[in-house]
Amino acid sequence: MIKKLSCLTAGLILLPTMVHADTHEDLAPVIDSIDMVWMMLGALLVFFMHAGFAMVETGFTRSKNALNILMKNMMTISIASVLYFLFGFGLMFGESLGGFIGSTGFFLQSEMDQIGFFVFQAMFAATCATIISGAVAERMRLSSYLLLTLFMTGLIYPIVGHWVWGGGWLAELGFVDFAGSTVVHLTGAIGGLATVLFLGPRLGKYTKGKVNVIPGHNIPIGALGVFILWFGWFGFNGGSTLAADTSLIPTVIATTLLSASAGVVTSALYSYLKFKRIDATLTLNGALAGLVGITAGTANVSPVGAIIIGLIAGVILVEGVQLLDQVLKIDDPVGAITVHGICGIWGTIAVGLFAVEGGLFYSGDVTLLSIQAIGVISVVAWTLVVTSVVLFFVTRFGSIRVSREEEVSGLDFSEHGSTAYEATNSIYNENLDTRGEFGVGLIKRLDGIESTEPDSGHQPS
Amino acid sequence: MIKKLSCLTAGLILLPTMVHADTHEDLAPVIDSIDMVWMMLGALLVFFMHAGFAMVETGFTRSKNALNILMKNMMTISIASVLYFLFGFGLMFGESLGGFIGSTGFFLQSEMDQIGFFVFQAMFAATCATIISGAVAERMRLSSYLLLTLFMTGLIYPIVGHWVWGGGWLAELGFVDFAGSTVVHLTGAIGGLATVLFLGPRLGKYTKGKVNVIPGHNIPIGALGVFILWFGWFGFNGGSTLAADTSLIPTVIATTLLSASAGVVTSALYSYLKFKRIDATLTLNGALAGLVGITAGTANVSPVGAIIIGLIAGVILVEGVQLLDQVLKIDDPVGAITVHGICGIWGTIAVGLFAVEGGLFYSGDVTLLSIQAIGVISVVAWTLVVTSVVLFFVTRFGSIRVSREEEVSGLDFSEHGSTAYEATNSIYNENLDTRGEFGVGLIKRLDGIESTEPDSGHQPS
Amino acid sequence: MIKKLSCLTAGLILLPTMVHADTHEDLAPVIDSIDMVWMMLGALLVFFMHAGFAMVETGFTRSKNALNILMKNMMTISIASVLYFLFGFGLMFGESLGGFIGSTGFFLQSEMDQIGFFVFQAMFAATCATIISGAVAERMRLSSYLLLTLFMTGLIYPIVGHWVWGGGWLAELGFVDFAGSTVVHLTGAIGGLATVLFLGPRLGKYTKGKVNVIPGHNIPIGALGVFILWFGWFGFNGGSTLAADTSLIPTVIATTLLSASAGVVTSALYSYLKFKRIDATLTLNGALAGLVGITAGTANVSPVGAIIIGLIAGVILVEGVQLLDQVLKIDDPVGAITVHGICGIWGTIAVGLFAVEGGLFYSGDVTLLSIQAIGVISVVAWTLVVTSVVLFFVTRFGSIRVSREEEVSGLDFSEHGSTAYEATNSIYNENLDTRGEFGVGLIKRLDGIESTEPDSGHQPS
Repeated sequence: MIKKLSCLTAGLILLPTMVHADTHEDLAPVIDSIDMVWMMLGALLVFFMHAGFAMVETGFTRSKNALNILMKNMMTISIASVLYFLFGFGLMFGESLGGFIGSTGFFLQSEMDQIGFFVFQAMFAATCATIISGAVAERMRLSSYLLLTLFMTGLIYPIVGHWVWGGGWLAELGFVDFAGSTVVHLTGAIGGLATVLFLGPRLGKYTKGKVNVIPGHNIPIGALGVFILWFGWFGFNGGSTLAADTSLIPTVIATTLLSASAGVVTSALYSYLKFKRIDATLTLNGALAGLVGITAGTANVSPVGAIIIGLIAGVILVEGVQLLDQVLKIDDPVGAITVHGICGIWGTIAVGLFAVEGGLFYSGDVTLLSIQAIGVISVVAWTLVVTSVVLFFVTRFGSIRVSREEEVSGLDFSEHGSTAYEATNSIYNENLDTRGEFGVGLIKRLDGIESTEPDSGHQPS
Repeated sequence: MIKKLSCLTAGLILLPTMVHADTHEDLAPVIDSIDMVWMMLGALLVFFMHAGFAMVETGFTRSKNALNILMKNMMTISIASVLYFLFGFGLMFGESLGGFIGSTGFFLQSEMDQIGFFVFQAMFAATCATIISGAVAERMRLSSYLLLTLFMTGLIYPIVGHWVWGGGWLAELGFVDFAGSTVVHLTGAIGGLATVLFLGPRLGKYTKGKVNVIPGHNIPIGALGVFILWFGWFGFNGGSTLAADTSLIPTVIATTLLSASAGVVTSALYSYLKFKRIDATLTLNGALAGLVGITAGTANVSPVGAIIIGLIAGVILVEGVQLLDQVLKIDDPVGAITVHGICGIWGTIAVGLFAVEGGLFYSGDVTLLSIQAIGVISVVAWTLVVTSVVLFFVTRFGSIRVSREEEVSGLDFSEHGSTAYEATNSIYNENLDTRGEFGVGLIKRLDGIESTEPDSGHQPS
Repeated sequence: MIKKLSCLTAGLILLPTMVHADTHEDLAPVIDSIDMVWMMLGALLVFFMHAGFAMVETGFTRSKNALNILMKNMMTISIASVLYFLFGFGLMFGESLGGFIGSTGFFLQSEMDQIGFFVFQAMFAATCATIISGAVAERMRLSSYLLLTLFMTGLIYPIVGHWVWGGGWLAELGFVDFAGSTVVHLTGAIGGLATVLFLGPRLGKYTKGKVNVIPGHNIPIGALGVFILWFGWFGFNGGSTLAADTSLIPTVIATTLLSASAGVVTSALYSYLKFKRIDATLTLNGALAGLVGITAGTANVSPVGAIIIGLIAGVILVEGVQLLDQVLKIDDPVGAITVHGICGIWGTIAVGLFAVEGGLFYSGDVTLLSIQAIGVISVVAWTLVVTSVVLFFVTRFGSIRVSREEEVSGLDFSEHGSTAYEATNSIYNENLDTRGEFGVGLIKRLDGIESTEPDSGHQPS
């Protein structure tokens, strides 16, 4: 039904190529070559998205936790790449066991012709995992986060991926998720949601019934991160064609551009209507909302459809952030659960409405819409349950959250013994050793700090 | 005469492809595929230039206006993309009405095979518009800026584009502007100039006859922006080949690299000669001067020609910034008018001098040089007049400039109710709500601030 | 033996293309076109690495020297591009004089078909030179640095390049350095080492036998720089295939990804074992260690081999930084000598161990390993001697190091008369002219500053 699926065989898939049945046979290597260039370009752009995630998450949180966020992002792409090579790729694209899980191709054994496809897919696995780092920012232990990353990239994500892109049961059903609104973004967001429920909110976020704003410390690098993500997303969606297909790629790039643009416009206008101000972080997140929203249907909807999807995503973003923060009191420092989760659901459902082939508004038929809903529900349930089970056992052996003292002093100090910035911005900074080696100076100063009394607030179920 | 023109038909153009008259017919889809990959790569790189503009403009202005600049840049690319899809593309590349304006192809109706070309061109339209945001920084109302963006991307730019790239009267005349020194950069700069004349200088910029320096707040992100712009410019110039043409692209990339490099060298040396210091912001702008300077002739001049064009652009940059700031007292916070306007004129005229085919220094003939001058004069006149007329009417309904209080407190507070950075960089930042929700805390503190008494300075004609 | 070498002719090389001996002749232009797209993409990514170097070096040093670092990086790519066009390319790829130096092709005279290859190689030359700027940061005169850049890009690097990639004596011997662990990184690092030995450590770095930590001022932009470098490195290694070769490129991208990832993992873990903290800057440098480590063998080792190479590189990085800083007391502010030098040696030697064809662990034969060692020793000796001779003569005419007062006040003030950041981060920054024009305000304040008494420390041999 979609390009990706049509390329899958029952077992381990072959690197798809543009099919020109009427061309000379000796054109095949040339076509392979173009397809490879396009897919590698896509893979590199998706890699670069990790710089975007790192900047967004760093900029939108406090300076005292900046090193920790950076380390989480840098280690996620690193661990995910290695682990996906060892296990994930095989579980996702190996020979299917009952449509549920792959079982061959670990270590790319005897599948070296798949190595380009592996690279592209490894970047996606890492993207899914790194979404969590934003939601759990400023309070989760680095070691616990890394442990969770192992499960996400080595088990939870590859199985979702197998269902949809590896020829599994959702693929068989006709579920459409071209570039991963559900597979990548929703899975990551639900993993984040489960973890946040175990973690609880940051100290001082919800005090005496009051919802406090904890603003980010460097919105310019956060904005740069959004631009980088948008840039990389063209590779995320465009590369998912897996071939230099002239009939698909320009459409994919255009719908991606238009939906993101529309998301910016409505998140800005809607925040203005609600707050009499164009809110900067909501508008920046509006771009991401439009991007997540179009990811599932980028190759299946029209440009006008893409604009409508983006316009709605921008509004959903503003309302979603408010809902989680004000009503549900779920503390998501960078808005990751709304952006990737709620907008991921919207994007997946939107395919059932706006897909030129099979969408309700074109066909009058709810079949595709129903299948899309089944996919969403299944992935939410799977990810929520497995992540919770993992966390349940992990939390038996120790807290996944840093201590109150560590949280107050900042994770940069407690986990890394340093700070992200010069102690002062003075240009006469002669204090060569103000931070000491691994924070000795800080420890001394920390002794004088009173910890704030947090409301116990939202606790894990 | 130039590649681009040779590909245009009288009406709506067809996506150009590499012409290999001697190749098998069945190679056509393969060649299309390569051309598409190259043009999409170019489009993505031009998209990324918007991150560069955002960082340059943010870094080169004060921290209290950082959010506002970021919003202007983010919303420009977004609004421009949608509007160019709805109107701009048709006005620029639709069937020509007398060589002045296009009239078909709105919404890409029945022109879906043009969608890749649309994406590439949409990025250019947004680039033209975003140039203005730098010139008007730190004092223009966001709403007025966005209104102007509608006119730039929906009317003023597409018509210039039609004249030169859409088969209009300048194209007929033989005007050469390969990638847009005039079409994109000069048009944007003149739009900025007109607006700055209406706005007047920032408070405190020209006081009692004294010219004050208002330094940028974060030169490292500004420098990063310059690197990003340079990187993206390879796509801007390189992608303008519209095809993976082996005879053109390496030359375009090389001339772009060499001219920008030469611009850096002379702006650094010339600032050293003038000020006994290598001025950092002038040197960074020198790269952009070299880039704007080579944009018109990137495919038409030799590598040595490119170096000479860049060397001269670097000197023009330093003198141009001084001229506007010290003599004309036109307040252009980031140097956009000089970089994109004066160097845009230089680049366009330089084609008439250095073009290997038709340039004065090669042919001894002034025909091309004269045509280039006609193009420059026409575009300056058109943009200056129409922008001024638009602004004349807009200013009848209210000020396009923020109030004195808003300017003193910063546009981040007045327009967005927040700040771009943490109130302090203290790593013990426990003040969870220092900024309050939408700036309540700031309002209180603002009460205690005295506004500076500005010189009335330069006022609009 | 390696792809690159196989493409070289005795004289000036031809732009290599994918060889499909069995394809129709009229496919050649199409294949050329794909190859060109891939090599241009590679070149642009390597260009972008310079943004990465600028951000890493700026972030990892003090704010008072940020402008200076940025200028060094911006001017290096600019000067290198022009100089490599004028001299370097001919010396490196021109007709060989005895396997030692090229002698034709200056100004690309009558070699315009080489212009794409020139662009790609020019970016490499600039990379080699810019490595030095990190090692000598915060104390070297800009003018002296630029003088050294002339020698590096116009003489020292092109000759090493000729030996290995230009058909010179190391190429003849069978030395394997696919993308430049030795040619680019080791050469740059040894140039840096020689210069650092002449310069001595920064004031206050080694006082009374104590080794002081001088932390960077902005680790988030440093981390962004690492991400950008990693992103660009895919073009550095991938583009070195010089053709869109489906049998090589996916492997190159995968080994690059896996080695960098492994470097992150072990530098994080090993720093945790040594210091009980995951050190942020060591972990970030661990990515670069893995990248330098895989650069020589990226096309010659297996994915598992790449992981092992990266794992070891991460440990070498931590120990190497400690060795230089604590034992040898060589002050390398950003770790450039360890990252590019020690890991460059490791990467080159690792080819002799892990190369699928000829590596000791596969063939049981030490021939390749020996050749690799000869290459390393030769390049170290050449670069160390020539750089030292150059510096010996340069230092006869004046100090290459700024004065004590200049170093204390910061090179931004002394060399550029300005600062990289706003004097305060106050959002009420009304002090429009706090820095004055070219630092007048600073000079006054500087009068009150006492200079620190540095230990004479490590002095040049």
